[in-house]
Amino acid sequence: MTASLTQSTELVGASIIAGQSVQGTGTAVHGIDPSTGQTLEPSYRHGDLGQVEQAAAAAAAAFDEYRSTSSETRAQFLDAIADNIAALGDTLIERAVAESGLPVGRITGEVGRTTGQLRLFASVLREGSWNGARIDPALPDRAPLPRADIRQRKVALGPVVVFGASNFPLAFSVAGGDTASALAAGCPVIVKAHDAHPGTSELVGRAIADAVASTGMPSGTFSLLYGSGRTLGTALVTDPRVKAVGFTGSRSGGTALVAAAAGRREPIPVYAEMSSINPVFVLDAALETRGADLGRAFVASLTLGSGQFCTNPGLVIAVDGPGLEAFVQAADEAVSASTPTTMLTPNIAASYASGVEELAKSATTVARGTETDAPNACRAALFVTDADSFVTSEVEQQEVFGSSSLIVRCTDAQQVRDVAALLEGQLTATIHGDEADHADAGKLLNILELKAGRILFDGWPTGVEVGHAMVHGGPFPATSDSRTTSVGSLAIERFLRPVAYQDVPKSLLPSAIADGNPDKIWRRIDGQLTQD
Amino acid sequence: MTASLTQSTELVGASIIAGQSVQGTGTAVHGIDPSTGQTLEPSYRHGDLGQVEQAAAAAAAAFDEYRSTSSETRAQFLDAIADNIAALGDTLIERAVAESGLPVGRITGEVGRTTGQLRLFASVLREGSWNGARIDPALPDRAPLPRADIRQRKVALGPVVVFGASNFPLAFSVAGGDTASALAAGCPVIVKAHDAHPGTSELVGRAIADAVASTGMPSGTFSLLYGSGRTLGTALVTDPRVKAVGFTGSRSGGTALVAAAAGRREPIPVYAEMSSINPVFVLDAALETRGADLGRAFVASLTLGSGQFCTNPGLVIAVDGPGLEAFVQAADEAVSASTPTTMLTPNIAASYASGVEELAKSATTVARGTETDAPNACRAALFVTDADSFVTSEVEQQEVFGSSSLIVRCTDAQQVRDVAALLEGQLTATIHGDEADHADAGKLLNILELKAGRILFDGWPTGVEVGHAMVHGGPFPATSDSRTTSVGSLAIERFLRPVAYQDVPKSLLPSAIADGNPDKIWRRIDGQLTQD
Repeated sequence: MTASLTQSTELVGASIIAGQSVQGTGTAVHGIDPSTGQTLEPSYRHGDLGQVEQAAAAAAAAFDEYRSTSSETRAQFLDAIADNIAALGDTLIERAVAESGLPVGRITGEVGRTTGQLRLFASVLREGSWNGARIDPALPDRAPLPRADIRQRKVALGPVVVFGASNFPLAFSVAGGDTASALAAGCPVIVKAHDAHPGTSELVGRAIADAVASTGMPSGTFSLLYGSGRTLGTALVTDPRVKAVGFTGSRSGGTALVAAAAGRREPIPVYAEMSSINPVFVLDAALETRGADLGRAFVASLTLGSGQFCTNPGLVIAVDGPGLEAFVQAADEAVSASTPTTMLTPNIAASYASGVEELAKSATTVARGTETDAPNACRAALFVTDADSFVTSEVEQQEVFGSSSLIVRCTDAQQVRDVAALLEGQLTATIHGDEADHADAGKLLNILELKAGRILFDGWPTGVEVGHAMVHGGPFPATSDSRTTSVGSLAIERFLRPVAYQDVPKSLLPSAIADGNPDKIWRRIDGQLTQD
Repeated sequence: MTASLTQSTELVGASIIAGQSVQGTGTAVHGIDPSTGQTLEPSYRHGDLGQVEQAAAAAAAAFDEYRSTSSETRAQFLDAIADNIAALGDTLIERAVAESGLPVGRITGEVGRTTGQLRLFASVLREGSWNGARIDPALPDRAPLPRADIRQRKVALGPVVVFGASNFPLAFSVAGGDTASALAAGCPVIVKAHDAHPGTSELVGRAIADAVASTGMPSGTFSLLYGSGRTLGTALVTDPRVKAVGFTGSRSGGTALVAAAAGRREPIPVYAEMSSINPVFVLDAALETRGADLGRAFVASLTLGSGQFCTNPGLVIAVDGPGLEAFVQAADEAVSASTPTTMLTPNIAASYASGVEELAKSATTVARGTETDAPNACRAALFVTDADSFVTSEVEQQEVFGSSSLIVRCTDAQQVRDVAALLEGQLTATIHGDEADHADAGKLLNILELKAGRILFDGWPTGVEVGHAMVHGGPFPATSDSRTTSVGSLAIERFLRPVAYQDVPKSLLPSAIADGNPDKIWRRIDGQLTQD
């Protein structure tokens, strides 16, 4: 059954394939309000492999026309998506709050972040450096051999599959950073909606589909499917027409997709953001001068949004002593006083509970948040261990998704560095240090540069600014590809590849590398940047 | 047994680990002059896993000091390598000619290309854009939330393993493009020498090791090992201290390394350049006006260096007719008149012979080069088939390494495009067309942009210019990672990853992103390129 989309915000409960509503035939899923356990209408039936076939065929058919649109045309398309999402107003906010249990303020902020991201990539398109334009002019008189005219620009990889994340129902979901950067690059996008927020996904999916129609993009530029990660998700990743994948989720889910993509006849890149415990190093002078303050600020970051952030501070590393005692005591009090908050889904709440239970068997419990009978609640948890135990314990090094953190007591600054050097890859690493700590901080920075995508001083890792300099990435297992970022303008590069044009006739050259610089963009001519 | 290296050009017949000569204990291999079959002294014994351990430990120990050197320091190091290689003069040229069977002129050119590549990366370091410096200054008064100071630069991935290629004993071997770009990026390099040119490898390896010593780089910055790809090569790729791999060689070898790297606990990028048949499209008007000339020029490219180039034109696609007849006839005559040339190794010559034999069973033989009794000779081979046969035949679509090519006759321009659309990924695709062909050429270009790393008009793909705009890459199976190039200045990006620095104290900021732009490099401030 197919039906045309309308501007109505009434939910249809269906996939969107190339502008058409398409009903699935599989398992029916509902949004669930995790604060009450109540089921939200309508139901969404999972799609089958026929939907994958349709969406992939539509994306492949749209690709050539879509990638050939001008930067300005795609910028207007991204702006139109942002406008449509903003226009959903309270309808979107209410639905996202109901499906996620996240507070209105947080969701309102996330709407702004999502539309801001789309507009950022519109500005990236208009600025034009994304083309990576380079020209090495011909040198016909060069001896012993003349040089041909060689020009380089970047082209879109092809259709991209994006997996919506549970914890950011907007900013890392249907119209999130992966979708925005892939669309900006000229890649059609097929989103697999996260089952935790199907209605939010439909609202945003229709906002995109409407923008596709109103700005005249080919209809296959965007599709939104509902389905299981294991079957429908794998089918999308292994479809030969799909050329790249964006994913934010669990380590097991991410590594499974990476393996599926690597096993294809033509392997493709998978940008999976997976697992990070985001170590926070609190140095001696800082502990001494403001240990208790830091302990309280730490718990504020830890308990924000039930700790359901990829950048949640899951680890604190410091030298033992009175300063750390003050930190721990303040953190103990703050955690003990913290009221439980609703987690995103029953599954996530159950995983949190069992993760905390496992950790309690290995490390010493410092404090838990207050008890509650509310469903899907996150009771914050704080543990302490020593460095020797930490470096040998797999459980203590594992991410517990939610407001759980572990303090590692070290004997001295050298042991702090030894622990840092043993850490797996991280999205972030944070250092708190006073002026007197800067020599130590410099040594630590040197280690952390090889461990994390972002290094912060005197702040907290939760809250990821969307801009040009941001890196939301990092070595494995933080992500499957440390050479990129999933947040910020550099993310467009994930979906591009360079092509060289040698002695191509002027009439056939793309405008980005044409004579006279018609697009008025920055280009590298004989290695020198110029706008001429 | 270890011994210090000397400036002597007498060959020692040993691996070089962190500046020391180290004898292997495994299989003894020799260089072989393929034109005579004669064994060349000395012998080189393959290294064992102990050598892998030593080289990886040395590289890991050197990494932090090496990556922290300034751009200018590394530029001087690269220049010193180039100087040392140039200073080897005839010693190097004679040895490389003897081990490869390639003519003196070709090897002389390759020395120039190799030193030129090293100097190009020195200039890339001095120019400074490689840092990818970005600064989003703090906005303390922004509402509702202030913005932190966020800065981004790129850091080296870590120790890199490079596999020397058989067909370019200098430019794609010990001090070839992979080594030059990895060293430029700040990565220590461990080269696995190709068994086909062990003496050339030792000479160049010593040139690098001497430059390490004379410019004061840490000794583990460079090592050169001899060994089998299957055992020693795999051990290098799976060593946890190694963070990236460069490889040029066969599809089977490349995919095996990709699989080994993907199976690590921490997967790492492998840049494998593997297989390409480099289609040449000759359009109607060009065939009509200069079919015979093009046929002769094609065979000149095909037989250059026994066709032992990754970019050898292994496929010609054109519409059948009198123009193509003239092309085929001229090519037939040129191939028939061609004298056999020596191939690089007995293995390569045997593979060529069996590849040609297989192809002859499927396609129609047009011509072979003259017969010979010389050892390891390449008798050029030209075949013809039709489009229907080509698109269904795996044999016809496979690369035969050497001077073998297949002409595919099509019925019309649409069938030419259909064949193009079915091709696997390629390093290059070439179009020959007159003005009257440009409409057709434009449609073809659109398809080829998604198939190849470099598109040429009215030239031949052999000969890869080293510059800023070159792309020597392309979709799988041409390479394992289409987002990069192995030739040209962009190649440095393969060995870097971005890191963001949030509110890092000014005294601890790397110079590339420090206030006042002390390195005087191009940086992106709030998204705008500037040298301020």
